[in-house]
Amino acid sequence: MTTRFKLILEYDGGPFVGWQRQDNGPSVQAALEEAVYAFSGERLVVHCAGRTDAGVHAVAQVAHIDLHRTTRADTVRDAVNYHLKPQPVAVIRAEVVEPDFHARFSATGRSYLYRIVNRRAPLVLDAGRAWWVPKPLDAGAMAEAALRLLGKHDFTSFRASECQADSPVKTLDRLEVVREGETIDIHAGARSFLHHQVRNIAGTLKQVGLGRWSPDDISAILEARNRAAAGETAPPEGLYLTGVSYD
Amino acid sequence: MTTRFKLILEYDGGPFVGWQRQDNGPSVQAALEEAVYAFSGERLVVHCAGRTDAGVHAVAQVAHIDLHRTTRADTVRDAVNYHLKPQPVAVIRAEVVEPDFHARFSATGRSYLYRIVNRRAPLVLDAGRAWWVPKPLDAGAMAEAALRLLGKHDFTSFRASECQADSPVKTLDRLEVVREGETIDIHAGARSFLHHQVRNIAGTLKQVGLGRWSPDDISAILEARNRAAAGETAPPEGLYLTGVSYD
Repeated sequence: MTTRFKLILEYDGGPFVGWQRQDNGPSVQAALEEAVYAFSGERLVVHCAGRTDAGVHAVAQVAHIDLHRTTRADTVRDAVNYHLKPQPVAVIRAEVVEPDFHARFSATGRSYLYRIVNRRAPLVLDAGRAWWVPKPLDAGAMAEAALRLLGKHDFTSFRASECQADSPVKTLDRLEVVREGETIDIHAGARSFLHHQVRNIAGTLKQVGLGRWSPDDISAILEARNRAAAGETAPPEGLYLTGVSYD
Repeated sequence: MTTRFKLILEYDGGPFVGWQRQDNGPSVQAALEEAVYAFSGERLVVHCAGRTDAGVHAVAQVAHIDLHRTTRADTVRDAVNYHLKPQPVAVIRAEVVEPDFHARFSATGRSYLYRIVNRRAPLVLDAGRAWWVPKPLDAGAMAEAALRLLGKHDFTSFRASECQADSPVKTLDRLEVVREGETIDIHAGARSFLHHQVRNIAGTLKQVGLGRWSPDDISAILEARNRAAAGETAPPEGLYLTGVSYD
């Protein structure tokens, strides 16, 4: 008999090769699996809702584990956090869930934030936490262009070549661009995303902000179904997995 | 003939012994003076509005320099930033000011933010950027107690023993406690502050938040005029100099 625990996780993606356990460096998954082992003596696989890339942050990643040991959820949270130190990963909350809950397969929505800091001076307190764009960006134009990407489309132009998804067709439920002072936040929400989709959208919207492309160009880029038509892949340090929803 | 430039500065206090040039480690002042020298060939003193302690951050410190060299303000900003790299200090804005402007002596107000993150899980993305308080705090009680400290008082109970000010009497124009989610922000504003005043207030309000002291206790602590009566000095990583005002 095991108990399934749902874990809400925060991490700084900076020092990691990404979520997934890999041979070439430290991963968030390995950090968690080691901490779970240190606490429980059980060698478990930690399953997550969305495998983030190297350098990408999370404020509310969701994962699950199956423990043989009988433990209170708060104890799981505190004990795993104790053993995670000093790595920049923390369990924000742990709760007991039904055995048919699956962090990845039960998820019905993912939300991401892409943060740009648009100012002439280099980043200091936001270094490693946002994309520094020194040239002025027109966030209004970016917001208008973002509307062209909302809804169900073939997102081939915004898909990484390594993408494993069966289909390039996805439905973007939310794509909002909000400027507050020198910060431009791009909020994206969908049932699921293609590999690099949010970063490729951010890199493309940046070109709109610079005045190089118009909202009409964005529609044409989407129609092209060609990765080379769209903009650069924005750097990972601006991206945050901000939430996962379940029915 | 020299031209006086006003500089608005952001820095991460973490790696520094404080604003002031000292023998025992890197200071923000020395970093700036070296960068100014590298750019201009001039050995200048950089004067600031408020000398922050070791570990304290700034998002809008104000300083001034007198350059012999004739240069555009934007060039001063960009050149100093170029030479500051990779240190976590940046000139956000530079502007030419009248020769009688003095970053410190012309200042008529200073504002600080003290950030607490109040949650069970250790800090990850906010590590080094806020005070982690794992036990639940009642921000409403803290806000009520803060009102007792507003206005003109003898702040001896909140003053560091090393404080150089002539008088312990200061006028707090603003002391607000605002909770948003797990973050509790304490906003403080005054013409000037005593040494450690904001951190000692934050450490004392924390005790109110924990339920150990009531707002009436805060009034009694103020009346006591005794540093030992008040709470601990909150750690530097939660403190930000957020602005300096001039007439």
